Amino acid sequence: MNKSIITDMDASDPLAKKRADFEIPAGKIYLNGNSLGPLTRAARARAQETIDQQWGQDLNASWNRHHWIDLPLTTGAKIAALMGAAPSQVVCCDSVSINLFKLLSCALQLQSDRSMVLSQRDNFPTDLYIVEGLSHLLGSSHCSLRLEDAGSLEPALDSRPAVLLLSQVNFRSAELHDISRLTQLAHENGTLVIWDLSHSVGVLPLELDKWQVDFAVGCGYKYLNGGPGAPAFLYVADRHLANISQPLSGWMGHRAPFDFQPSYDACDGIDQFLCGTPPIISMSVLDSALEVFSDVSLAQLRAKSVQLGELFLSLLGQNDSLAELQLQSPENGANRGSQLAFAHPSAYAISQALSAAGVVADFRSPDLLRFGFSPLFLSFADVWESIQILVAILADERYKDPAFKQRLKVT
Amino acid sequence: MNKSIITDMDASDPLAKKRADFEIPAGKIYLNGNSLGPLTRAARARAQETIDQQWGQDLNASWNRHHWIDLPLTTGAKIAALMGAAPSQVVCCDSVSINLFKLLSCALQLQSDRSMVLSQRDNFPTDLYIVEGLSHLLGSSHCSLRLEDAGSLEPALDSRPAVLLLSQVNFRSAELHDISRLTQLAHENGTLVIWDLSHSVGVLPLELDKWQVDFAVGCGYKYLNGGPGAPAFLYVADRHLANISQPLSGWMGHRAPFDFQPSYDACDGIDQFLCGTPPIISMSVLDSALEVFSDVSLAQLRAKSVQLGELFLSLLGQNDSLAELQLQSPENGANRGSQLAFAHPSAYAISQALSAAGVVADFRSPDLLRFGFSPLFLSFADVWESIQILVAILADERYKDPAFKQRLKVT
Repeated sequence: MNKSIITDMDASDPLAKKRADFEIPAGKIYLNGNSLGPLTRAARARAQETIDQQWGQDLNASWNRHHWIDLPLTTGAKIAALMGAAPSQVVCCDSVSINLFKLLSCALQLQSDRSMVLSQRDNFPTDLYIVEGLSHLLGSSHCSLRLEDAGSLEPALDSRPAVLLLSQVNFRSAELHDISRLTQLAHENGTLVIWDLSHSVGVLPLELDKWQVDFAVGCGYKYLNGGPGAPAFLYVADRHLANISQPLSGWMGHRAPFDFQPSYDACDGIDQFLCGTPPIISMSVLDSALEVFSDVSLAQLRAKSVQLGELFLSLLGQNDSLAELQLQSPENGANRGSQLAFAHPSAYAISQALSAAGVVADFRSPDLLRFGFSPLFLSFADVWESIQILVAILADERYKDPAFKQRLKVT
Repeated sequence: MNKSIITDMDASDPLAKKRADFEIPAGKIYLNGNSLGPLTRAARARAQETIDQQWGQDLNASWNRHHWIDLPLTTGAKIAALMGAAPSQVVCCDSVSINLFKLLSCALQLQSDRSMVLSQRDNFPTDLYIVEGLSHLLGSSHCSLRLEDAGSLEPALDSRPAVLLLSQVNFRSAELHDISRLTQLAHENGTLVIWDLSHSVGVLPLELDKWQVDFAVGCGYKYLNGGPGAPAFLYVADRHLANISQPLSGWMGHRAPFDFQPSYDACDGIDQFLCGTPPIISMSVLDSALEVFSDVSLAQLRAKSVQLGELFLSLLGQNDSLAELQLQSPENGANRGSQLAFAHPSAYAISQALSAAGVVADFRSPDLLRFGFSPLFLSFADVWESIQILVAILADERYKDPAFKQRLKVT
């Protein structure tokens, strides 16, 4: 494959124009949007407006004048639109971990005769830690955790768990679960599902309502580009909203918070999942970052994401680098999310060498290199350039030389 | 009292220079810093640096390069310095409500033979809602709530509650509890204390370590000027840290979060109270806002805060307005926090008329006007001016006229 083919791919890419919405640092190829999405122009402008005008000038009047009080729901509705969910079922608040605690409590409440949470051994760890925390609080007879490898999850549903808790995209390998199929199998066993969509939302087409998902959580700072530690979100299917009460019952989930009544009276809707006062600056930034999705479809994003990954793999193959970099992700793009992981004994050094050469990838202990493909701002030329740099680094093993980084800066 | 005395008070005020650190809107007298502290110059600059350089240019490398990963502890240490607390006992994270849930769980864990939480009927409601939420989750035999009026709290300690949960400053009246005395009385009854310091920190001298407080929470957006919905903080006395485990065990509280181990292994220190990924932009803004405290003492702040309140009351008295505005706060400045509350049947209309005239005060349902005195940016002349406006509004009852706000804008 030569560079002119790449140029043609970019020229015919309907998403190519979206890169102008982002502030990608000059000279960097950012293959880490799966860890922290980059700054958008909209987010920079909204942060300034929120700080200078809304907070600085209008002060506490902004809770109403600039609709701060509605932000968890309005931002939630924008996220719902990316997940095939009616807007009344998604709210933006807190962190993934805290939201998962709320949803786990609710799911166990609905399953009064069951207590076991089934999850995957290499699920993202915070999800497992939160089950542990709830189990410790309630006692193992009310909440216990069973861990299985990916291939053993379906048979384990026979043991009739209360909850099946999974991430759609494995955070290391990007291997995909079939949400529709596993949700249906779970329901056939009387099991409720909680999906962690942190590595999914904004890059994978989702149909939460159609798939009859019960609950979901996800973060705002990966493919949603909401900024470091952006607030998270949660989804609860409408059919459950009337039958649950979540334990983190702070005043923002009260039906009339400004009546200051001593007794809690939860909102009816998804706003019952609010707790304390939301971090308005961080949430406004996330809200504005979602604007870049207004004129694109998830099908377009998914198609380009798969193309970017395929190109990366095929160029690596052409350069005979796939023997050295052991692919840890599914080979078939349809079976993985929007990243590729490779094992290499010098993964950390290579990630540092790449970074010094302007290619930002991620290292995951102990030996994984992870490359993320955000279709909103990456070009096919970016993939081409990053492969040239990666292959050069692998070829002469310069990354093993302590002086390497310095030399690269000079040349 | 004439205006020249006021001018002298401002001229000899050692804190007068601090106003230059703030961006108070032109033409406004802001008597609402007890609800939402105003923007500081440091916060505006830090927000821009965090967004443009750290996120925009350095991207995820900022977790180490710009110490995002340490921010909950470094910001916590700055707050500790304002509370008479060794820095190892305070961390910045989540919201007051969520932090209270963590601490309540821990306190009840330490009190295995007791389950009752004693609080005040007119404590800030979210504190009570969180006890309700935990009680609902654990069952009333593990957590129950007893509410008393302020005067009945001390005798109620005889019933040996597990936890005494109070706000130092009443959110309506500003009436102060004596933390030292109540903590000692609680301990004599084997009761642990949790203090909500949301209306205290940054304006009242605190000695948490000396007073042997067990636990405390507080918010970042009032007198700390951390911005709307700024992250909150929590305090845990060193002596308890080794004996507790909090249920919101997210990955940021793990001893080695980036080892991605499936089992939770909590940090030893106050960082065990971290949960999910912190909202870095909002937390950075709070962190920078704390710089204004670096060259002032809490004793200075308290002295001026009391003087501002005394001046407000004495000017109101001179103008015979105290018959119409019924003081709901303690008359003696030593017995109240940094706000004054008055009952008036038209409190809402008066607050709107004040706002139209540039005086920002707070209305609290059903009939309270609340004036906050932030000693870092208010002058004695501000108090003088606000009284002239308030007295004029009361005198001709213009606030009852629907056209009032419009007229005020014209004149």
